[in-house]
Amino acid sequence: MAARRPPMAPADPLPRSAHAAEHGMHLDPQTREESIRRLRSAKGHLEGVLRMLEDPSVYCVDVLKQVKAVQGALSKVNESILRAHVRDHVATAAQRGDTDTIVDELMEALKYRT
Amino acid sequence: MAARRPPMAPADPLPRSAHAAEHGMHLDPQTREESIRRLRSAKGHLEGVLRMLEDPSVYCVDVLKQVKAVQGALSKVNESILRAHVRDHVATAAQRGDTDTIVDELMEALKYRT
Amino acid sequence: MAARRPPMAPADPLPRSAHAAEHGMHLDPQTREESIRRLRSAKGHLEGVLRMLEDPSVYCVDVLKQVKAVQGALSKVNESILRAHVRDHVATAAQRGDTDTIVDELMEALKYRT
Amino acid sequence: MAARRPPMAPADPLPRSAHAAEHGMHLDPQTREESIRRLRSAKGHLEGVLRMLEDPSVYCVDVLKQVKAVQGALSKVNESILRAHVRDHVATAAQRGDTDTIVDELMEALKYRT
Repeated sequence: MAARRPPMAPADPLPRSAHAAEHGMHLDPQTREESIRRLRSAKGHLEGVLRMLEDPSVYCVDVLKQVKAVQGALSKVNESILRAHVRDHVATAAQRGDTDTIVDELMEALKYRT
Repeated sequence: MAARRPPMAPADPLPRSAHAAEHGMHLDPQTREESIRRLRSAKGHLEGVLRMLEDPSVYCVDVLKQVKAVQGALSKVNESILRAHVRDHVATAAQRGDTDTIVDELMEALKYRT
Repeated sequence: MAARRPPMAPADPLPRSAHAAEHGMHLDPQTREESIRRLRSAKGHLEGVLRMLEDPSVYCVDVLKQVKAVQGALSKVNESILRAHVRDHVATAAQRGDTDTIVDELMEALKYRT
Repeated sequence: MAARRPPMAPADPLPRSAHAAEHGMHLDPQTREESIRRLRSAKGHLEGVLRMLEDPSVYCVDVLKQVKAVQGALSKVNESILRAHVRDHVATAAQRGDTDTIVDELMEALKYRT
């Protein structure tokens, strides 16, 4: 059923970046699988928070804590993807040679570290 | 039904805080509904990221961006819950009188702002 | 000599906020003195980083660490000022009565927490 | 005169990292000069905040704002040093060859981004 719905929030049409094709900078299989596993766990956690909120007497701070915990789990996903990205760039720096572009791309990616 | 499934990630048994009963500091219905709506949307967004990751050629930075967007959505949930919490404390400060305890509780809640 | 120079970076003319006079929300003497002491210490730390940078062979990560440590010290200043601010608002909430305005002011102040 | 005072806050004896000598990863002169200029400006800003605090009627939120502005200036210093550090690592990756070590060092440096 979920498959029939638009895959993402309306504001975010999830366009595939042109970089992917250009540089062949794909996620290595291990990092991709680890990310999937962690994101599924974060989704389960989020479902738990939604169940908490069904209780009208839920305490504010308990919700704040759990939402922050989900954010922490998402930060770990981004940390691991960023590490894979840095590794790719460093490993291919010699062949590519365009140090400035590589540095720009890495600094751009760092913005998504949280 | 929800009660039969484990309510959350194993590390987080989600104990109901003693504060809830003590101070009656519950989420007001409007903030609770808004939080549920926003968290459902964040969950849909997360499912979209999981579908992205099914593609072996997904680009690292695209995933980083989407995960950060989900975190931003979760921050808005906590911002709105925190506002409700602050409002409750300010509104009842006169009856309660224990300024120091109120300030401690508010400063504690602020830690979950992200 | 410092007194003859403009008191702050050009972009920041440091106008006294209209709120100060309006609500009488001044820093209590103890927090003000503590802030002065901590900021002087942060300034000393910053001077230490400047001396580090006189050495042409200074290592990047050493500078990154020290600059981050100064930022941490500044965060503690803001944490303590924020606590004083919250205390003032909670303590006077009963007399003032305008809960919405108080909440808006507190949420505004929270933005400066880092 | 400054040289006679302890160079830094007591908790931070500022030991020169062993990495500096080992890898020769020094700050390039341009980034070093830019950092000095920016840190001097941050120090001037901090002195401005200290003068603000001499006024017993200073408004809390005005201080919070200025302290946060100083932190923002320090973040820019670290951003620029980090960029220089990434550039060094990428540029020398081919000669060094030890991708894993380079990635570890870069990920370590990222922790100081704020």
